[in-house]
Amino acid sequence: MSTNFPKGFFTNGLHCGIKKNGKNDLAIFYSYKPCVAAGMFTTNIFRAAPVIISEKKIKNKIYAIIANSGCANACTGKRGIIDAEKMCKLVADEIFVKPENVLVASTGVIGQFLPIAKIESGIKKLVTQNLTEMMPAVEGIMTTDTFPKLVSSKFRIGKSEVCIWGCAKGSGMIEPNMACTERPVLSKVKGSRSATMLSFILTDAAITKNALSEALKKSVNKSFNCLTVDGDTSTNDTVLILANAESKNKTISSGKDFQLFCSKLDEICVKLVKMLAMDGEGATKLITINVQNVKNTFDAKKIAKTVANSPLVKTAIYGNDANWGRIVAAIGRSGVKVNSEKVDVSFGNLYVFKNGRPVNFSEIKAKNIISLKEVEINIKINTGKESATVYTCDFTEEYIKVNASYRS
Amino acid sequence: MSTNFPKGFFTNGLHCGIKKNGKNDLAIFYSYKPCVAAGMFTTNIFRAAPVIISEKKIKNKIYAIIANSGCANACTGKRGIIDAEKMCKLVADEIFVKPENVLVASTGVIGQFLPIAKIESGIKKLVTQNLTEMMPAVEGIMTTDTFPKLVSSKFRIGKSEVCIWGCAKGSGMIEPNMACTERPVLSKVKGSRSATMLSFILTDAAITKNALSEALKKSVNKSFNCLTVDGDTSTNDTVLILANAESKNKTISSGKDFQLFCSKLDEICVKLVKMLAMDGEGATKLITINVQNVKNTFDAKKIAKTVANSPLVKTAIYGNDANWGRIVAAIGRSGVKVNSEKVDVSFGNLYVFKNGRPVNFSEIKAKNIISLKEVEINIKINTGKESATVYTCDFTEEYIKVNASYRS
Repeated sequence: MSTNFPKGFFTNGLHCGIKKNGKNDLAIFYSYKPCVAAGMFTTNIFRAAPVIISEKKIKNKIYAIIANSGCANACTGKRGIIDAEKMCKLVADEIFVKPENVLVASTGVIGQFLPIAKIESGIKKLVTQNLTEMMPAVEGIMTTDTFPKLVSSKFRIGKSEVCIWGCAKGSGMIEPNMACTERPVLSKVKGSRSATMLSFILTDAAITKNALSEALKKSVNKSFNCLTVDGDTSTNDTVLILANAESKNKTISSGKDFQLFCSKLDEICVKLVKMLAMDGEGATKLITINVQNVKNTFDAKKIAKTVANSPLVKTAIYGNDANWGRIVAAIGRSGVKVNSEKVDVSFGNLYVFKNGRPVNFSEIKAKNIISLKEVEINIKINTGKESATVYTCDFTEEYIKVNASYRS
Repeated sequence: MSTNFPKGFFTNGLHCGIKKNGKNDLAIFYSYKPCVAAGMFTTNIFRAAPVIISEKKIKNKIYAIIANSGCANACTGKRGIIDAEKMCKLVADEIFVKPENVLVASTGVIGQFLPIAKIESGIKKLVTQNLTEMMPAVEGIMTTDTFPKLVSSKFRIGKSEVCIWGCAKGSGMIEPNMACTERPVLSKVKGSRSATMLSFILTDAAITKNALSEALKKSVNKSFNCLTVDGDTSTNDTVLILANAESKNKTISSGKDFQLFCSKLDEICVKLVKMLAMDGEGATKLITINVQNVKNTFDAKKIAKTVANSPLVKTAIYGNDANWGRIVAAIGRSGVKVNSEKVDVSFGNLYVFKNGRPVNFSEIKAKNIISLKEVEINIKINTGKESATVYTCDFTEEYIKVNASYRS
């Protein structure tokens, strides 16, 4: 395995026949030692079978995640649940653990049953082959993604070198709004259609279950839950983190070590989220929206999300047009009470709107800023001290093309 | 004037030079007798100057509405307010009334001041010419609209023939969320950029101010406030209704006559809204979303709006794709607590999802239904008795093209 990969973990991926295009559609993420695990799952009322199953198992010691693309196993009723359980059992049998020690995730078309025979033979190959390549695994969870997303980080805790590695997929139907397993489950539910955000994070850190859950929740709320491509929240969104303690560090539970772990996990998650936004369906640009000086973070995020999901803002940025009026209109309809005479808007450092009034600015400078691959929209509400950052992309003809013909 | 026009009203429109393309950009709607008036205005925090001015005057007897396109007079501060007042005064001087008897509305680009000299000479021509043509007026409020929207209705109240006539404009930045003037004003505010929904309704009915306000509020909440093209609420959205009592009917205040008036006004507003949705920027189809059997109308509307604003649903309909999973996913993320095992979805009469499960349906039949110019999506939540209908359109490459280059 690469040196940028946590000790004791192995991955593999292959094409088992779910996807018609011959691309990888099955992936395993495996630790030879048991892991503490944490997860966050979609809050969509229609939750796919693998979400229901993994949420139930996340409290257990975990050895593996099995994931497929090409079929979301959503809106598939009892059979969907049985199939998701079957995937866990097939993996468990191969690696000599119990099904409750295996998590499962799916992404792809909705309302179709998993081709479980194909998956069965796929899983056998997946585990008997050498589990030393990360690319096939990351490719195995891709749907309309145009590039694989993976990132890793190494740092010291005491004398031990710790590694966190993460991968993610998702291009359309992307506005994850995930909650951690501690929350009351809203519904038992069936499933739905999904392009879905999936992210699997592996670390060889020794960390308590509680600390891991807490760290994940904090990071996700600053990263994946601040991502939107099209405002459509999938039924399958899932983030899972496994920690197998192979780095032999003093077990992290709180204090400085915990803070360090959190900050590194934040970095991993934000990097993945930026890649996801950059690769939004049809996207040509990553747009970062910073909303500052708001009474509370909830309101800051609400404003940022409203701007991020505005088709008019997204098309203006696509057209390299400093059409700040669309940003202001989106702020004004966000539902947050804003003092309109205090609002500032800038592209990067170039102010276009200050104290609720237009600013004379150079259209050429603005165009230069907006023409870059990464565009920063800064909004100051100036009625408080809290802030939020949301990541999105522009909106292009290609998004329409991809999604007007997805199923065919 | 046409026989399908209310007695005592006159309209006119012309090109005064605000628009660069030579198309009409100024319109007047005038009654030679004073009218009772009612209005509903955008709830966007950034309200344009004409919204602020008209909201203040709506309590007065009204003789005329002056409206321009090509410039929203939004985010224009004190000068914007002065300019909007000036437009009222210029009209008032021509028709020998006071400025407080004239309402004003604007639509177009934001952050620019009105070219008041051009408007001044425009208004002089507008009023001295014969005010007998409705088309130039309706065209005078158009922005990216591809066709003028007007509709009228005649009916009897007692022995009197009453006429209601309405026109509307708006193609992009369309999700009106208007409130009536009775509500507390949220903000004094500056303005914003807008394509805006404007609608002016004229009737020769004799009706009390209270009854007119009540009727408008009811109708707007079932029509304009149930319309979305792109989810972006403008800073200039305005609906105005004038009633000049020229039909000499017994003044409507309550009871059967009021009910009749309301039902006719409902028809006018819904017809206008369907035209607006059909002419959404880049749209090829009108999509009607009926959500039934919900605990309350607020929840029903919330579900319908979430589905209506889903880019994935809108692109699927554009692609004639019966991708019901996207509809189900949108229902599930709407924020309304739904029992997922009770939800039904159909295209027209063709069920695709029943009791939270996929239904075996004919893809060919579904494609035939979705390929029509008008598509009906029916959603039954089956946990209550209330319902809501929302009107929208599909999402096409043309929307992107129009909006990626709007200002240039």
